[in-house]
Amino acid sequence: MVEPANTVGIPLNHTALLKDELDIVIPTIRNLDFLEMWRPFLQPYHLIIVQDGDPSKTIAVPEGFDYELYNRNDINRILGPKASCISFKDSACRCFGYMVSKKKYIFTIDDDCFVAKDPSGKAVNALEQHIKNLLCPSSPFFFNTLYDPYREGADFVRGYPFSLREGVSTAVSHGLWLNIPDYDAPTQLVKPKERNTRYVDAVMTIPKGTLFPMCGMNLAFDRDLIGPAMYFGLMGDGQPIGRYDDMWAGWCVKVICDHLGLGVKTGLPYIYHSKASNPFVNLKKEYKGIFWQEDIIPFFQSAKLSKEAVTVQQCYIELSKMVKEKLSAIDPYFAKLADAMVTWIEAWDELNPATKA
Amino acid sequence: MVEPANTVGIPLNHTALLKDELDIVIPTIRNLDFLEMWRPFLQPYHLIIVQDGDPSKTIAVPEGFDYELYNRNDINRILGPKASCISFKDSACRCFGYMVSKKKYIFTIDDDCFVAKDPSGKAVNALEQHIKNLLCPSSPFFFNTLYDPYREGADFVRGYPFSLREGVSTAVSHGLWLNIPDYDAPTQLVKPKERNTRYVDAVMTIPKGTLFPMCGMNLAFDRDLIGPAMYFGLMGDGQPIGRYDDMWAGWCVKVICDHLGLGVKTGLPYIYHSKASNPFVNLKKEYKGIFWQEDIIPFFQSAKLSKEAVTVQQCYIELSKMVKEKLSAIDPYFAKLADAMVTWIEAWDELNPATKA
Repeated sequence: MVEPANTVGIPLNHTALLKDELDIVIPTIRNLDFLEMWRPFLQPYHLIIVQDGDPSKTIAVPEGFDYELYNRNDINRILGPKASCISFKDSACRCFGYMVSKKKYIFTIDDDCFVAKDPSGKAVNALEQHIKNLLCPSSPFFFNTLYDPYREGADFVRGYPFSLREGVSTAVSHGLWLNIPDYDAPTQLVKPKERNTRYVDAVMTIPKGTLFPMCGMNLAFDRDLIGPAMYFGLMGDGQPIGRYDDMWAGWCVKVICDHLGLGVKTGLPYIYHSKASNPFVNLKKEYKGIFWQEDIIPFFQSAKLSKEAVTVQQCYIELSKMVKEKLSAIDPYFAKLADAMVTWIEAWDELNPATKA
Repeated sequence: MVEPANTVGIPLNHTALLKDELDIVIPTIRNLDFLEMWRPFLQPYHLIIVQDGDPSKTIAVPEGFDYELYNRNDINRILGPKASCISFKDSACRCFGYMVSKKKYIFTIDDDCFVAKDPSGKAVNALEQHIKNLLCPSSPFFFNTLYDPYREGADFVRGYPFSLREGVSTAVSHGLWLNIPDYDAPTQLVKPKERNTRYVDAVMTIPKGTLFPMCGMNLAFDRDLIGPAMYFGLMGDGQPIGRYDDMWAGWCVKVICDHLGLGVKTGLPYIYHSKASNPFVNLKKEYKGIFWQEDIIPFFQSAKLSKEAVTVQQCYIELSKMVKEKLSAIDPYFAKLADAMVTWIEAWDELNPATKA
């Protein structure tokens, strides 16, 4: 039986890595008591809380955390008509936090995620591992059988081309989950008791040309490198689909990272995912996505961006056009989503004017 | 400090999986004392020993093992002029064992590989894990973040297309090494003391379109599915290169598996690799390969087989033509290698006449 770590007694992390260069984004509808357990690791950092649902409700944040909080009224006020691209009543709203951040790095975590223990029983500082992942290169062009070659005690194995050993910048660090695995509703229904107890001590680069299911529960990324592609789409209230927000972002992000020569890592760190969401509710949210993804994934697998697309924004706008052209046949929703992708970029650029001109 | 497992006292495995369908191929130049440690796991199986070097030398095999042994005289006698495709004074000679086997599965292991311990201290039955890997499907078309979805306690994660969950047949199981990692000579020279102590409890499919450095030290495969592509090339005596035998096979095998829709798994099982080979000797063998692989790998990355190539033999002959055409410019060696690839297939078909006609 996997249990979350007991972090009581762990001293505050006074050498918090990248303290002034990283924001933690948390979407929520409830009081953030879960932060108590994270205090030793996360208290030094600034939080951006995106309050979903009823804006009149007050969200309690444990004392001592430095945060800014945005509810729906704030989003509408800040973005005006462009607020239409931010989902409501769905954790997809978290991407508003990516947009208002002014930091280079983002770590986003769900409020039902607790501190995991490694096999030795030690509490896992998830954020520290994400930062390690983001600060060391990725190796997307060839597979290294001993996993991350940049990790201590590891290297490139015999036969790995030397010209590729410098690697590329890492844009995304995708962490995993002990206890409740990130399963879809059908798998939850079929295997209600399955728990993930296997701690795999590895980080690896997802190869170029390979798509992956990106989960937003325990995720970090470099905003400067890939931020504008981290759009979580139109989900929840008024939309025909939910629980595909992070998947959508993951497909777009991977295609753009492959095009721009950026890396995506997955593996460590683990968090302890405490509670399975209701599979019946999930099935209702997911069923169109389960059907649609059979066409969406081949679309993204064959998506080719032009040489002219050299910024994330340019790539994303190109992708939005391809979405409108190729996916609208599946459902009119995709035309709306393609428009929202453009709105998202407009809003991003408005809040993040270029400074290097 | 990682130490090999102590297997004394482990009872013989009386329920040896696939006992009559698997051969163990061992290339060697010395007495096979290392088998003593493997006795509990390997004694039920048949061994094919390929004796390299001086054929007049006698190789001692521990009592109780069932084996056939081939030295250079045997190879010459059996293959006649086609024996030219089998390397001499290089462990590449092991592929002769793949050819003379009549079994569906092959496990090949080096004679400096011992039984590893898992983190709980238990001796790892490497062959049993290889068989598990080969008997369950692979998932090369999309990445599963929780590693092998077919393993107990794991599954496909949310967002994995249902149409791809059946997977494809697994042709290759590539195992890893604790203690001495499989490094090239330059890395050995730079990091003489590095030992691999990280036991990563994972098996994964190498995605379609991604090449990997296949090591022949601890490898299993399905002979019926991919055998004719497991040619270890021309290495050692009279050749300008060594220590690229398994790499060559790995590049060819992966391209053909991708073309035929077969899977390649890597990860568990670990063996305990006891002794680093001499880095100075290795450098002499490798240096041309280190240089050449910078061109060879892009060649294999872009190699496209025709729709007409539907058997492994047809794929391999096509590949040999491409090697001759595209790689001969690097060095005349590749024209010779391309010819040897054809000879290999001819010899394979001679020893393995089609039975399903």
